[in-house]
Amino acid sequence: MINKRVDLTSVQIEHLKTLVSGAVSTNETVLDQHGRDESAIPPVRPSAVVMPHSTDEVSNVLKYCNAEKIPVVAFGAGSSLEGHVLPLFGGISLDLTQMNKIIEIRPDDLLVRLEPGVHRVALNEKLAGHGLFFSVDPGADATLGGMASTGAAGTTTVRYGSMRDNVLAITAVMADGTVIRTGRETRKLSAGYDLTRLLIGSEGTLAVITELTLRVFGIPEKMAAAIVRFPTLADGVSAATAIVRSGISIARCEFLDAKCIKNVNAHDDLNLSEMPTLFFEFHGSPQGVAEDAQSVKEIVEEFDGSDFEWTTDEGARRKLWQARHNAYWAGIAAHPGKRAVSTDAAVPLSKLSDAVQTAEQILSKHPYPFSILGHVADANFHCFIVTDPTKPEELEDVRHITHEITMKMIEMGGTCTGEHGIGSGKIQALIEETGAPAVNIMRLIKQTLDPNNILNPGKVFN
Amino acid sequence: MINKRVDLTSVQIEHLKTLVSGAVSTNETVLDQHGRDESAIPPVRPSAVVMPHSTDEVSNVLKYCNAEKIPVVAFGAGSSLEGHVLPLFGGISLDLTQMNKIIEIRPDDLLVRLEPGVHRVALNEKLAGHGLFFSVDPGADATLGGMASTGAAGTTTVRYGSMRDNVLAITAVMADGTVIRTGRETRKLSAGYDLTRLLIGSEGTLAVITELTLRVFGIPEKMAAAIVRFPTLADGVSAATAIVRSGISIARCEFLDAKCIKNVNAHDDLNLSEMPTLFFEFHGSPQGVAEDAQSVKEIVEEFDGSDFEWTTDEGARRKLWQARHNAYWAGIAAHPGKRAVSTDAAVPLSKLSDAVQTAEQILSKHPYPFSILGHVADANFHCFIVTDPTKPEELEDVRHITHEITMKMIEMGGTCTGEHGIGSGKIQALIEETGAPAVNIMRLIKQTLDPNNILNPGKVFN
Repeated sequence: MINKRVDLTSVQIEHLKTLVSGAVSTNETVLDQHGRDESAIPPVRPSAVVMPHSTDEVSNVLKYCNAEKIPVVAFGAGSSLEGHVLPLFGGISLDLTQMNKIIEIRPDDLLVRLEPGVHRVALNEKLAGHGLFFSVDPGADATLGGMASTGAAGTTTVRYGSMRDNVLAITAVMADGTVIRTGRETRKLSAGYDLTRLLIGSEGTLAVITELTLRVFGIPEKMAAAIVRFPTLADGVSAATAIVRSGISIARCEFLDAKCIKNVNAHDDLNLSEMPTLFFEFHGSPQGVAEDAQSVKEIVEEFDGSDFEWTTDEGARRKLWQARHNAYWAGIAAHPGKRAVSTDAAVPLSKLSDAVQTAEQILSKHPYPFSILGHVADANFHCFIVTDPTKPEELEDVRHITHEITMKMIEMGGTCTGEHGIGSGKIQALIEETGAPAVNIMRLIKQTLDPNNILNPGKVFN
Repeated sequence: MINKRVDLTSVQIEHLKTLVSGAVSTNETVLDQHGRDESAIPPVRPSAVVMPHSTDEVSNVLKYCNAEKIPVVAFGAGSSLEGHVLPLFGGISLDLTQMNKIIEIRPDDLLVRLEPGVHRVALNEKLAGHGLFFSVDPGADATLGGMASTGAAGTTTVRYGSMRDNVLAITAVMADGTVIRTGRETRKLSAGYDLTRLLIGSEGTLAVITELTLRVFGIPEKMAAAIVRFPTLADGVSAATAIVRSGISIARCEFLDAKCIKNVNAHDDLNLSEMPTLFFEFHGSPQGVAEDAQSVKEIVEEFDGSDFEWTTDEGARRKLWQARHNAYWAGIAAHPGKRAVSTDAAVPLSKLSDAVQTAEQILSKHPYPFSILGHVADANFHCFIVTDPTKPEELEDVRHITHEITMKMIEMGGTCTGEHGIGSGKIQALIEETGAPAVNIMRLIKQTLDPNNILNPGKVFN
């Protein structure tokens, strides 16, 4: 068991250089780059950064690291919000960004095969040429490998699902170097245990993903965006849940509080009214989207929604969603030099309005600036809390506050994480939420598949 | 390890009686009923049938059976097509049908909590009173516990997903009696390993499910059915794949060959033209379904589809889908005294037409009557092959033929099972398809969670 920091010997580093065709680096800047992510968790440097180019190279590296008991943390874009890529116990950061080939796009099968280092924006640029898109869109331009490992979701999950629903097959390397293939290029599969979904969201603790087969969709004939303002946060959230219950087909439904709107106005040079706001998107036929938008308009009016605007103009639609995707960075840009801690609760639909108000009440008692936004159709929302990275006591204090919020959400039947994952910060929350017996089953699986605990130690479990 | 038949001693049977409030039976008729399913696999009797009434009773039974190394096979409706419920190594059949309470229906959360013995038709009758429905619809009136354990799917999977997509949370008893809870009552979840989806489709080999939380949907404002005929099987299947690629929102899209139509005509007193046929269903607003049906009509005409008929009449729509759900029994009814072997391949979308024709060619070389139908929008189809249960050599022969078909489907990048599962008949196919290294990971998980191999031994693995 790895329970203290591992620094590599020069012999080990030289040996790793024989195993990969890419770099093995101990350059300080490179180590720094691989010791941080988008969370506010203080950085931890790896002992070395290793850049493989193929599944075989990853296999050879893992075989060696397993024998030598060297921790291995897979690294993609470094856009995790839960410290996933931080090498808490040293060892190597396995940087997969040079494995960034789109192997094949198969429009007739509505699928794409690619290496884990491909970024989602680059993927969608390529797919657009075939009239296709990949639906999962976390705010960051993450890598697909990272998105699979953390079970990412995004603004379109309400319509198209999360990574769990859109990864058909995986090639992965187990801790001992064994290469496995899970899943098939089929839309349905009932053959044996669902190893694909066991690996998705396992946060790099069970295997390193080296190839993915993803389901893609045809770009809809028509896409329309709509925006509507509410007097209060509770009204906006209640309207969203009413729309979900109505069964109207929405492709996106996002809530932003007044502070978020203020931040995105400044960051993206917009002039949206600074009120609690819902952003919508509709996908379908021209008549279909118009009808859906009209149905939504009727519902939001019952919740005092005002200034309902909708557009099928592509430029306006893109600008709106770009602003939404920038909301996290817009929040940080409003507070130069600061970092943000993000909560990630999801609750049963009927509890969403209560949950958001409870979080707001707790945060209002403290001095830290915050904003709230959410994938409200999925009853998943984030509080972004601004903290000063030069004051560790602030981070500690904010962690206590977010833990208080998380515990309230769990009491309401919710989860501590709808899409960001456990990382190192929610290990206790996972036990509170899921119960020790189920977490113990997870741990047994981990111990069986990675007996030396080399894969991302210190994440998901203590 | 259990590797030969286990028959219970009278002391063991008496002890089991102290552990459950329901019956413990060794009545011959009861043993017979629990020794067969809807497959053509020859029956195998359990040594006793045990009927628990609660999670605690299941836990006590498993704890005892684990200590005594008694095999435990969970039993629901007995509607498996792969011999899942057959106690190949004796021991007990754990009949969960008395755990059939719908615990709560929560329309505001779009979810329902229930015990595993609830049947899907009964569930939908209750849900309809709340304007809701549960989407997964295998042909049989299976129990929800059985459907979760086998990862069932159905005609609406193209729109609403399979059990994997619609089970939010599970209470399950592990082999040693430990009770775990997985998942949450939320639409999104990223907290730790996805044990929910590990259990779904594990065919009773990892745990016994004792409670389920399911996602439900509001009954759509409008539902329309359509039907269209094709000159050849290949035309019909090609039309279906073109419709999927077009992105038109279909709720159901099923193919039936001329023989299936003949059988359902006889069984359900219909007079459909005996030609290769597609059945469709559309869900949405009145205008939306009309528009979707019109778009489908335009596409099918390109593939020589004729006699396109559509209806929003509720009686006609129900009658059509009832006939589709009866197709399996209609096929058997056409051959009194016979049983059917069903294939269950799914292939990449672009291979579907080839795959169906390949299967038809192989079957045409043999004397056994067969028909073909499929969830073609998901590129999953079934060949029903009629066999005489009194002639074991016929079953053996048919098994060789289906194995030949399965191997061809795997070569095309397909799977041996889209929705029926592995059971005892596709153990070798699972290895061919997934590769020994991945199957070995499955086996390691099984050995870790059920070291005495008491849970449904002989299924999924040898």
